[in-house]
Amino acid sequence: MESSSAPAALETAVTVPSSAFDVSRRPDTAGLVLNSPRPPSLREELVGVVGKAFRPRGAGTGGAGGDRRPPRFAWVLTALQAVFPVLQWGRTYTLKSFRSDVMAGLTLASLGIPQSIGYANLAKLDPQYGLYTSVVPPLIYAVMGTSREIAIGPVAVVSLLLSSMVQKVVDPAVDPVTYRTLVFTVTFLAGVFQVSFGLFRLGFLVDFLSHAAIVGFMGGAAIVIGLQQLKGLLGLSRFTNSTDVVAVAKAVFSALHDPWHPGNFFIGCSFLIFILATRFIGRKYKKLFWLSAISPLLSVILSTAAVYATKADKHGVKIIREVHAGLNPSSVKLIQLNGPYTTECAKIAIICAVIALTEAIAVGRSFATIRGYKLDGNKEMIAMGFSNVAGSLSSCYVATGSFSRTAVNFSAGARSTVSNIVMAATVFIALEFFMKLLYYTPMAVLASIILSALPGLIDIREACNIWRVDKMDFLICLGAFLGVLFGSVEIGLGVALAISFAKIIIQSLRPQVEVLGRLQGTNIFCSVRQYPVACRTPAVQVIRIDTSFLCFTNATFIKERIMEWVRAEVDTSNEKVRERVQSVVLDMSNVVNIDTSGLVGLEEIHKELASLGIQMAIASPGWQAIQKMKLAHVVDRIGEDWIFLTVGEAVEGCLTAHKGSAMEC
Amino acid sequence: MESSSAPAALETAVTVPSSAFDVSRRPDTAGLVLNSPRPPSLREELVGVVGKAFRPRGAGTGGAGGDRRPPRFAWVLTALQAVFPVLQWGRTYTLKSFRSDVMAGLTLASLGIPQSIGYANLAKLDPQYGLYTSVVPPLIYAVMGTSREIAIGPVAVVSLLLSSMVQKVVDPAVDPVTYRTLVFTVTFLAGVFQVSFGLFRLGFLVDFLSHAAIVGFMGGAAIVIGLQQLKGLLGLSRFTNSTDVVAVAKAVFSALHDPWHPGNFFIGCSFLIFILATRFIGRKYKKLFWLSAISPLLSVILSTAAVYATKADKHGVKIIREVHAGLNPSSVKLIQLNGPYTTECAKIAIICAVIALTEAIAVGRSFATIRGYKLDGNKEMIAMGFSNVAGSLSSCYVATGSFSRTAVNFSAGARSTVSNIVMAATVFIALEFFMKLLYYTPMAVLASIILSALPGLIDIREACNIWRVDKMDFLICLGAFLGVLFGSVEIGLGVALAISFAKIIIQSLRPQVEVLGRLQGTNIFCSVRQYPVACRTPAVQVIRIDTSFLCFTNATFIKERIMEWVRAEVDTSNEKVRERVQSVVLDMSNVVNIDTSGLVGLEEIHKELASLGIQMAIASPGWQAIQKMKLAHVVDRIGEDWIFLTVGEAVEGCLTAHKGSAMEC
Repeated sequence: MESSSAPAALETAVTVPSSAFDVSRRPDTAGLVLNSPRPPSLREELVGVVGKAFRPRGAGTGGAGGDRRPPRFAWVLTALQAVFPVLQWGRTYTLKSFRSDVMAGLTLASLGIPQSIGYANLAKLDPQYGLYTSVVPPLIYAVMGTSREIAIGPVAVVSLLLSSMVQKVVDPAVDPVTYRTLVFTVTFLAGVFQVSFGLFRLGFLVDFLSHAAIVGFMGGAAIVIGLQQLKGLLGLSRFTNSTDVVAVAKAVFSALHDPWHPGNFFIGCSFLIFILATRFIGRKYKKLFWLSAISPLLSVILSTAAVYATKADKHGVKIIREVHAGLNPSSVKLIQLNGPYTTECAKIAIICAVIALTEAIAVGRSFATIRGYKLDGNKEMIAMGFSNVAGSLSSCYVATGSFSRTAVNFSAGARSTVSNIVMAATVFIALEFFMKLLYYTPMAVLASIILSALPGLIDIREACNIWRVDKMDFLICLGAFLGVLFGSVEIGLGVALAISFAKIIIQSLRPQVEVLGRLQGTNIFCSVRQYPVACRTPAVQVIRIDTSFLCFTNATFIKERIMEWVRAEVDTSNEKVRERVQSVVLDMSNVVNIDTSGLVGLEEIHKELASLGIQMAIASPGWQAIQKMKLAHVVDRIGEDWIFLTVGEAVEGCLTAHKGSAMEC
Repeated sequence: MESSSAPAALETAVTVPSSAFDVSRRPDTAGLVLNSPRPPSLREELVGVVGKAFRPRGAGTGGAGGDRRPPRFAWVLTALQAVFPVLQWGRTYTLKSFRSDVMAGLTLASLGIPQSIGYANLAKLDPQYGLYTSVVPPLIYAVMGTSREIAIGPVAVVSLLLSSMVQKVVDPAVDPVTYRTLVFTVTFLAGVFQVSFGLFRLGFLVDFLSHAAIVGFMGGAAIVIGLQQLKGLLGLSRFTNSTDVVAVAKAVFSALHDPWHPGNFFIGCSFLIFILATRFIGRKYKKLFWLSAISPLLSVILSTAAVYATKADKHGVKIIREVHAGLNPSSVKLIQLNGPYTTECAKIAIICAVIALTEAIAVGRSFATIRGYKLDGNKEMIAMGFSNVAGSLSSCYVATGSFSRTAVNFSAGARSTVSNIVMAATVFIALEFFMKLLYYTPMAVLASIILSALPGLIDIREACNIWRVDKMDFLICLGAFLGVLFGSVEIGLGVALAISFAKIIIQSLRPQVEVLGRLQGTNIFCSVRQYPVACRTPAVQVIRIDTSFLCFTNATFIKERIMEWVRAEVDTSNEKVRERVQSVVLDMSNVVNIDTSGLVGLEEIHKELASLGIQMAIASPGWQAIQKMKLAHVVDRIGEDWIFLTVGEAVEGCLTAHKGSAMEC
């Protein structure tokens, strides 16, 4: 056995008798490690990413179905189809689909009209602005978007976000005109940001909000929105502009000392119960889901009629009063790109843009997965961005995909974005002809419509799941939740982002270093902690570095952990050191990349082991890692003979070398 | 072959004929994955870390050599030895070592005295403060430190850092008393921070400065220090307080219009050449290294004598003039812990503390590695912290380990920290008796002593290495260098830290996803890009996820990359889809941990693959990852039968299943 180095991990090699061939003839596989091609350099990778970003999608696979046209025209068509997916699906659109879409669009409108009015109220704008937002953005999205089910329009969280941030700049109660100007500017900029995210393939920005952060943030925002509705529900005149729990509780408490009119509370509560009851019925009997879809509209009609009949507005019931009728007016001149508040607006816009995209893409993806098609994140961003840019020019505020309305659209059988067009047309008709009817609509019923949409945002079951699965993620969730609740929406987001990134850095700071053992009778090496049946090899310690990036934050830590183990091993076998640990095999299969600090760390491990008389071998380093080790001459110093393709070969190689040296002694 | 699932990766299994045993009887190893013990929870890991932090070192292995004493006393001795390593090595200290240490200490003092005066000048303090700093901190370190060669005292970079930051609060030219007060307060706080870093095992803070950042930072700082010396070298009276290149260039340019005295320049240059020449000789003939060690002192003596003899001070040569003689005065009353500048001081102190520790530990570690012993980072921090706390109470500013003096100490044959005691005693004698002799020492010679120490800080060769090995690290290096040069010391540090952490986050944002192939005739699967000889298995795509933390930042990206590949594979074999990709094996051996977003991503991959009619299997997930997949019921949804210990088994399992289903059809 003196000089055999049987490549034991090789299936074929098992049949090879472990007979005489000298140490220099290592398994061929070991040479593969050192002679692998050069990995793409930073520049090549960047060029690849940028090139991919600006190459039109689908150009590679050829214009689908356009093979007979001259190539130039095919390219133009492909490009047009890439920007306007309607050109693609429109050609196969059937009358049957259209019928489904009309039904879905009408159902959507019956839910969308009261919600839009309510959310406009939440955004501290007049009711018609919510309706405007349900007209233009859905039309633009319909021709540019790739999701088939999503329902575009104002949503609760973005409305809250917008009003809570813009009102810090200008108070809408004091100067509603400037407030509106700022809202449109923010909408315009948010649209521009969204388009540029899509163009520059910055879709990953949306991923910065982790699942846990979104759960916590949505829950907190829902409670804050609910608390804001106390104003409408209790018919209060004075209320706080702050969104945190403490300020709202104080405001409600002090308002209760003023005379208040229980009529508001009665109307709000009874219609809230009505809407929740219809939703319960809709959930139980799937066929009656339309009941829950039209119940908000029904509540508006019934409550308006009741107030008109009983003249309750004379007895303290707050009503909407005048609503401006007619189509969206132009707001081109209201957008201030070099006004005094532009920097503020840009800050608000970027937060709104990211949150709106996060919600839209989350909604779109979940329904796309159900239907089994793929959503193109970057195209979605461009579509959403253009919707908002167009919206900002026609008196709309930030629109995005709504959870609740998309679900209704899906249940009502929408087949394409045509349902959005139908919805927009219906809202347009309502704007043109029925606005006068809203005069007597009580504010309390709007509050109850918003309140009824909130339970969907609070996902307690998911929060429990997160707690069970990942305590650190729960901390992120809790941070976002409490931040929104007791600070503000921005603080909640900031806390969640900070904890999320701290987690990644901590993860890279303190990687695991696992001692590996062999599964008996096999050549599989695995962690002795994870698989207690694995046996450690006596003379050869196998240690796996469990990080994909051996870098400055963890190089020293890893070095110290490895040396601690080796020293402990040497100490316990004080007398016969030579017979215990003779080699250390570093399994670097997990180490994809390494930086110069990591290289220094590796060399130090090698030196310290050498000073203890222990040989170091390296098994299966990653592509970038081995390349950099070669460039930095670390391979030369460790010795090419001590780099192996698999742990099994490395252990075998070390054992052979020891036996060889033992024989020489 | 219908229902065999031969565990092909098992060496033993090769001999087993792949004959009849049904699908439910999977390889035993697969069960191991699912039945591994629970990994330590977050709480258990935290308890482990904290417990380890407060358990005295060495208590576990028993007081070395104290076995016969009663256990209680042994514990006290161990604890005392842990705090004062001198008690440990002092017992075996020999006269021979002492003789070596005295020689080394005297050599060290001859270099340390002129350097201390120069660095005090750099710190904008009177010369004696530099000498004070060479007395008290080395004495404290000598009884508490674990490094044997390190030379403690003022160093160039920390002196620059301190003066450049404190002078922004109070100008030393306007109010030298308050400036000194602030310097001592910063020193005290820096010491307190260092002690607490050591006590709370926050040693990793030092690792936040990567190798590349240190190279860039040191280079930039050296150039800035060099430029500051132009004041002394040219004998300028007016000079800028800014440290950036532009401001210094302007100041020098405008000063050149004033009358200036070439005498200063002549003295400075000739002694700079002298010192550099002796160093060159010392490098060439190792035995003459003492020449380079005493040449600064020699320069001071010669230049002082020359100025005194020629009365050059009357002709515009700037001299030190009065130096306060005598032992360190107490500065206890100068430390202001609730003064108006305390917050500022704390900020400066934390930067100084980290930089000082970084330098000390880097110096200590490099020499410890040469001598083959281990430095305890946490003990070093505590020793350094107490040195600075004691120093701040006796008119010293921040001390740390000096690169140049430690090298001299090492070359002079120092055996223990006793050489630091000898050095301190020598400096004390100089302070007591020879201060008057410094009256005529020209400022220009101090500048030349500082300048001569700078080339050691600028490591162009290492910068070239970094460029060759890792472009990203070079960017960090360059950022730190240019930041220090054109901004300020803090800006340079900030830039380096920001790029370093951005790198880690980018690394986690865009992990590689590699397609694996089988090395022919073996059961080894490796990346087809890294090992082009590897062959892809036709019906089973094997994809490895190359990140150790599958989390919110990369879950979507990984999902999309995998689906892109699978779709491309399905597209190219349009006609016979069923016969091409039938399964996808995800090699999760690199995925150590996962978060809830990662779990959602995995489930989505499973769903999307299922919608394409493709089976997903998972091979060798990490310990935390499989635990969380079990908790989140992802394992249940994927199916326990599709989780394998190795890629080989997974591929085999998939092939068997397909053959089975093909037979059924």
